[in-house]
Amino acid sequence: MSKSRDGNFFEDFKLGQVMEHATPRTVTEGDVSLYTALYGSRFAVQSSDAFAKAIGYRRSPIDDVLVFHIVFGKTVPDVSLNAVANLGYAECRFLKPVYPGDTLSATSEVVGLRENSNRESGVVYVRSTGRDQEGAPVLEFVRWVMVRKRDKSAPAPEGYVPQLEKAVDAKALGAALPPLDTAAYSNALSGNSRRWDDYEVGEKIDHLDGMTIEEAEHQLAARLYQNNSRVHFNQHQQGQGRFGRRLVYGGHIISLARALSFNGLENAFHVAGINAGRHVSPTFAGDTVYAWSEVLEKVRLDRPDAGALRLRLVALKDKAAASFALKTGDQYDPAVLLDLDLWVLMPL
Amino acid sequence: MSKSRDGNFFEDFKLGQVMEHATPRTVTEGDVSLYTALYGSRFAVQSSDAFAKAIGYRRSPIDDVLVFHIVFGKTVPDVSLNAVANLGYAECRFLKPVYPGDTLSATSEVVGLRENSNRESGVVYVRSTGRDQEGAPVLEFVRWVMVRKRDKSAPAPEGYVPQLEKAVDAKALGAALPPLDTAAYSNALSGNSRRWDDYEVGEKIDHLDGMTIEEAEHQLAARLYQNNSRVHFNQHQQGQGRFGRRLVYGGHIISLARALSFNGLENAFHVAGINAGRHVSPTFAGDTVYAWSEVLEKVRLDRPDAGALRLRLVALKDKAAASFALKTGDQYDPAVLLDLDLWVLMPL
Amino acid sequence: MSKSRDGNFFEDFKLGQVMEHATPRTVTEGDVSLYTALYGSRFAVQSSDAFAKAIGYRRSPIDDVLVFHIVFGKTVPDVSLNAVANLGYAECRFLKPVYPGDTLSATSEVVGLRENSNRESGVVYVRSTGRDQEGAPVLEFVRWVMVRKRDKSAPAPEGYVPQLEKAVDAKALGAALPPLDTAAYSNALSGNSRRWDDYEVGEKIDHLDGMTIEEAEHQLAARLYQNNSRVHFNQHQQGQGRFGRRLVYGGHIISLARALSFNGLENAFHVAGINAGRHVSPTFAGDTVYAWSEVLEKVRLDRPDAGALRLRLVALKDKAAASFALKTGDQYDPAVLLDLDLWVLMPL
Repeated sequence: MSKSRDGNFFEDFKLGQVMEHATPRTVTEGDVSLYTALYGSRFAVQSSDAFAKAIGYRRSPIDDVLVFHIVFGKTVPDVSLNAVANLGYAECRFLKPVYPGDTLSATSEVVGLRENSNRESGVVYVRSTGRDQEGAPVLEFVRWVMVRKRDKSAPAPEGYVPQLEKAVDAKALGAALPPLDTAAYSNALSGNSRRWDDYEVGEKIDHLDGMTIEEAEHQLAARLYQNNSRVHFNQHQQGQGRFGRRLVYGGHIISLARALSFNGLENAFHVAGINAGRHVSPTFAGDTVYAWSEVLEKVRLDRPDAGALRLRLVALKDKAAASFALKTGDQYDPAVLLDLDLWVLMPL
Repeated sequence: MSKSRDGNFFEDFKLGQVMEHATPRTVTEGDVSLYTALYGSRFAVQSSDAFAKAIGYRRSPIDDVLVFHIVFGKTVPDVSLNAVANLGYAECRFLKPVYPGDTLSATSEVVGLRENSNRESGVVYVRSTGRDQEGAPVLEFVRWVMVRKRDKSAPAPEGYVPQLEKAVDAKALGAALPPLDTAAYSNALSGNSRRWDDYEVGEKIDHLDGMTIEEAEHQLAARLYQNNSRVHFNQHQQGQGRFGRRLVYGGHIISLARALSFNGLENAFHVAGINAGRHVSPTFAGDTVYAWSEVLEKVRLDRPDAGALRLRLVALKDKAAASFALKTGDQYDPAVLLDLDLWVLMPL
Repeated sequence: MSKSRDGNFFEDFKLGQVMEHATPRTVTEGDVSLYTALYGSRFAVQSSDAFAKAIGYRRSPIDDVLVFHIVFGKTVPDVSLNAVANLGYAECRFLKPVYPGDTLSATSEVVGLRENSNRESGVVYVRSTGRDQEGAPVLEFVRWVMVRKRDKSAPAPEGYVPQLEKAVDAKALGAALPPLDTAAYSNALSGNSRRWDDYEVGEKIDHLDGMTIEEAEHQLAARLYQNNSRVHFNQHQQGQGRFGRRLVYGGHIISLARALSFNGLENAFHVAGINAGRHVSPTFAGDTVYAWSEVLEKVRLDRPDAGALRLRLVALKDKAAASFALKTGDQYDPAVLLDLDLWVLMPL
């Protein structure tokens, strides 16, 4: 019998099953540098220890989305190695700041299963939790993926579709944000004086810049996250597949869009939660990614230092974001790569 | 009104204006590793903590040119986002060693302005200063760039062309070089026994090797420096422009040439100043960079451990440096990418 | 006379000559992150400080193969800059764990020389030793390379072909493996419960995944190791050569195959020695690398915590490893890139 594993298929999952994922990972300053080199992020809190300390952090925390990618990566070998598609995210909350030197590990619980009518695949819902070396949760999220069956005739596991919140309750946000000394927060160093009060529901922001993706870049990124999904790395195999090309890890687009969003959202340095997200189209090397945001909701939190903005963050391919392209009727514009609904926190 | 910023145009600058640039940056061992991976530099002082400590540093200092790039990167959003061309450098001095863990920030003062006769753009001169977390200056330099006007009919700011030194006075060099224990400086480990005494004015050195640039490499580099100049990253936009391609950040060529110059200048581990510099031609992915140096001047400093060499460092494209190509008459050889005039210090 | 060096030619070597190589190198967390981004390795011991500490390390050790590459890189300017081919490895042993912050340097002794009958080149055998900042050996290996002569008519150095061990004696293994607390070794976190007892001599493992190599990736890798062999970096020159392309550093293939081998060898976290190795064919950007392993030998060591497996690790190009392609008669399958014979240790 083969010693190597080719991952779980739909019929291998059981409702309520808990998986402890392999390969804990100490996050370091080296990861921070690579993340900067991959996306060019410029939020002052994550870039400068001095800035972070001045406002109340122990030092610069690890970028939230990098924490997400590392935890996500651990779930891949058990959850999505045989995925046809990554369908969505929900109920994602960041629960504790992560600092260089912390070690992350992950577990997932199967919270939903539904076989497709063609019996060739099914949808698996998992709630994944990332924990630090003390076992404290740093991140929690639900994602659902369409997973192939090994054997079409295999009996499907008991079906159940979980009820997921449309959006993370704003009251549940902020666990990963220490009390801020907002007076010590320098607008000159952060890049802008606009804080929470200066944004309005309904306003749209064109983040202006575009970034073209190279094969080496998205491969370096996915490997940094120890994400071993085959579709990202193997041109020999992908060349024979549906797209003829390697697929860029969807999270790479989230990070690109997030880094681009600095231009216009300079003080929205903390992603507190993700309400929903959809990778609308596949991305390939050579694509140029643009981004725009819309303020969906503003919530004053039960704390004096920061407020929450609910944003729609949209990534487009080869189309300037000044278009604010999204949908025509129910149909996404062909340029849309990502439609992400997230909570960011901003100092008051 | 849009929340995102598309940078300053020529008419936005005022003589004497001081800009405090955004996004302070803690430099780390991760940045050092990436810098090594991007250029392959082999100077022992910057590579080995043990070597650096033995001769008088606290530990390996950050490569001078990396410090330059990080400080430069901070000035881009305010100074050169709308630049047509980066015209020159002068009066650049390195003032204090930077170590992993130090946080760099930058300010710039507008020291010169001159509208072009076509009234479509003008030249902006800025003196930029990089400081560490204690506010101590680590680097100072003047650069001038041609910046577009937003509106051709806008009145030009008051004009003034600063008098810049032709070269940094050798007496002003060495602030970033601690007293060296030259006896502890191992020629075997540094790679060569030739020190300051062994070089002669007028001699030329072919650095032999060549490095071909990939898109992913120069993009990773510029993002590492948080340099957000659009021309480096956006093929969708650049494809429609004058060159049809992304432009490589000029500083990338400086770092490549500097790393190549190790072969023949093994003990010139410290760049103390830059007198002048010109990016003669644009560089693109696929170009192979070669480098050669000429010793322009030798100065004994008022210290017993090190002397200064003034070098011309030339980078060529797709042409071996054995040619020592430079100019025919007043005309640069078409292979010349960079013509840099710098001071390096070498142990006696 | 030129100040730059173009390396030693065959007639420059002398039997018994000892070379102290340049550029000592402090290995850092930054190098670890880059190594992860380049290969995606997932062995828990090297990934998690918490995991490593629990079983008896001070913290996560540097990946053995990364240590090999850094030491190897130092030998290149003196040993193989004028090499036509890297012919083989033998008697490689890892002698002490290397941790972030350690500084590596290298020496080599010429242990064999043999001129080729065409008098245009010869084979140089060197025994290279990597040492840490305290002078303690961390790695030792013999390699032999075919090196060009500068001058065909130059007299050949005295010839001698050393007797090399067919394999490293298993009794000599394990110096770099601290006593393990095997009870604290979590199978869930390591990714598999199979330990030394679960492998059998003769069994073959298809490591399933494939990785396509990009130019930027192998260049970043070789520069990270400060390996300045020209064939990896210079398309302008290589384009005129035999292959028309840049050659990928052979060690890059070793690291790719080793990282792929995690799938099926999850607990074989320590490479203790290399018995023999051959780069069967050159590798180029665009090639997709697959890997398979065969268990050649099992040895119980004189310690209660770990056993040794002798493996053949084979890397293939553009051919799935399910083929277990190797040789037809004496002839290697054209897909074979690497045939490596190594010792790995596994917890009992």
